Amino acid sequence: MSFSKFKSEFRVRPDDIDMFQHVHNSKYFDYVLAARYEQMERFYGMPMEEFMKQGYGWVVKTAYVDYKRPLTMGDEFIVETGVETLNEKGCRVKFSITIKKTGKTACDGWFDYALISLETGRSMLVTAEMIAKYSI
Amino acid sequence: MSFSKFKSEFRVRPDDIDMFQHVHNSKYFDYVLAARYEQMERFYGMPMEEFMKQGYGWVVKTAYVDYKRPLTMGDEFIVETGVETLNEKGCRVKFSITIKKTGKTACDGWFDYALISLETGRSMLVTAEMIAKYSI
Amino acid sequence: MSFSKFKSEFRVRPDDIDMFQHVHNSKYFDYVLAARYEQMERFYGMPMEEFMKQGYGWVVKTAYVDYKRPLTMGDEFIVETGVETLNEKGCRVKFSITIKKTGKTACDGWFDYALISLETGRSMLVTAEMIAKYSI
Amino acid sequence: MSFSKFKSEFRVRPDDIDMFQHVHNSKYFDYVLAARYEQMERFYGMPMEEFMKQGYGWVVKTAYVDYKRPLTMGDEFIVETGVETLNEKGCRVKFSITIKKTGKTACDGWFDYALISLETGRSMLVTAEMIAKYSI
Repeated sequence: MSFSKFKSEFRVRPDDIDMFQHVHNSKYFDYVLAARYEQMERFYGMPMEEFMKQGYGWVVKTAYVDYKRPLTMGDEFIVETGVETLNEKGCRVKFSITIKKTGKTACDGWFDYALISLETGRSMLVTAEMIAKYSI
Repeated sequence: MSFSKFKSEFRVRPDDIDMFQHVHNSKYFDYVLAARYEQMERFYGMPMEEFMKQGYGWVVKTAYVDYKRPLTMGDEFIVETGVETLNEKGCRVKFSITIKKTGKTACDGWFDYALISLETGRSMLVTAEMIAKYSI
Repeated sequence: MSFSKFKSEFRVRPDDIDMFQHVHNSKYFDYVLAARYEQMERFYGMPMEEFMKQGYGWVVKTAYVDYKRPLTMGDEFIVETGVETLNEKGCRVKFSITIKKTGKTACDGWFDYALISLETGRSMLVTAEMIAKYSI
Repeated sequence: MSFSKFKSEFRVRPDDIDMFQHVHNSKYFDYVLAARYEQMERFYGMPMEEFMKQGYGWVVKTAYVDYKRPLTMGDEFIVETGVETLNEKGCRVKFSITIKKTGKTACDGWFDYALISLETGRSMLVTAEMIAKYSI
C-alpha cells in the first residue's frame, strides 16, 4: 500500500533565527508539526482538535532529521509529508523541507508517532476508524 | 579510544510545556544544546564563545532522538553527553536525559555536528588543536 | 504628522500553544516582530537585513501589551502596526492583533524601539535617511 | 499593606539567544514566568499545579517591560518578583531581572494577572483562600 503526500507552505519567523543567523535546528521539528496539523485538517478530515476532543493526542516516539542546508531570515519553504507506515501501534511520517527560492532541500527525515490517552498519558491502539481516515 | 561523559542538571521551564502538558518535543534538542554548551565551557576548556571568536560555529548535521517518557512541569533532569567519534570531519555526540526524581530515561539519542565558518556558512575541517582539546 | 498603518496576516503554529491551550503570552511579541519585519521589507523599502548589512539592529526598549482574548490552535490573525512617533532617538510602534474569524482584538499595545550598533551593542542615532524612509 | 519579594536564579539557555547575539526580547517574559512558578511553589505554598488541579489558571492581562541592557550567552541572572496589589479581580506583580556578574538591571516592569477557569477560559474571582495564601 502506498500513501499520499501533501505540501504546506510557510515562512521563517524572525524569532526562529538563532545566534548563527540561521533557523535554529529545533525549529524544523516545529515546521513539520505545523505542516502535519494543517494537513490533518485539510486533507485527512480529522484534525488534531478532533483527536483531542475524543481524548487522544499524537506524540513523537522517535525522530530522525538530516540537515542539508539552513533556512535563513525571511525564507519561504515547503514542507512535504506523507505517511510511510500506519498500523494500530502508530505511524511513521516522512518529511522533507524545501527552500522555495532555490528548490533545494533544507532537511529531511522521519518521525514515528504514537497515539496517547490525554487523561493517562499512556499509549493507545490506533482505532480502525483512524486508520481508515489516514489511509489515503 | 574512548571519551569521557559529562552531566549537567537543569529544570523544565514553564514555557517548555506544550498543549499536552508535557515538555514540547523540540525542547529536548535545546536541553542537549544547553548541556553541551555548559560542558564545553566547564570540562573541555574551549567554550562555544571561543569557537565563535575564532570565526567558527558548530551546527547539527543529523539528529536522532528516541523519546521514552515525557518530562512535565517543574521536573528536574540530568543531561549526560559524551563524544562518540571525533575527527576532522566532525563529531558524533551521544546523549541521554534522565528524570531526576525517578532515575528513568526521558529520551536518548545522538547528534552529528559539523564545524562551520561563521563568515561563509560553509563546513570547515576540525583543527588538530580542537581535536586535542575534545579528546578527553 | 501622521504615519501609515500596515497589515500582515499569519496563522498560529502548534508550537505557539501553551499548557492552557492558548497561544503563550510571549509569542504575541514574536507575532508583532514578524509583522514588522514583513512590513519593513514590503512597505518601507528598507528591510531589517538592510539595517544589519549596514551594521545596525533595532531592539525593543519598552513594551506594553494589553491582552484581551486569547488566540487558540489554528487561528488566523491580522497584525496591524504603525509608527506613532519617530525621531533620531528611536520610534514608537503601535500594534493590534485581530482574530480573523471573529474580527475581535486579541491584544494591542506598543513597542519603543532603539537603533543599536551590531558591533558595540550601543544605541545609535537614527539617521535622516532612515527617518525619511520610515516617514510614510 | 506591603508584600514580600522573592528571588530566583537562572541561567540563559543557548536557545534563548537571537540573531543579535542577545537574549530574545520575548524570553524575558518566560524568565519572569519561570521565577513566578518557582516562587509560588517554594514560598506561597500553592503552586500553579495546585491551581490547575482545582480547575484554575493564571493568565497575563497586561504586561509592561522596560529593557535596560541585554542578557547574553551564558549569563546568570536573578529574577526578583513581588505582589504589588492583590484583590478578587487579580494581582499586579512587579519584577526586575538583574545580571549576576555586574549587579546591573537587565529589565524591569510589571504584569497584571487574572484568574481563569480552565474549562471555560473565562475570568474568575480570586477566592479569599487564595488571597490569604498570597498575602505574605
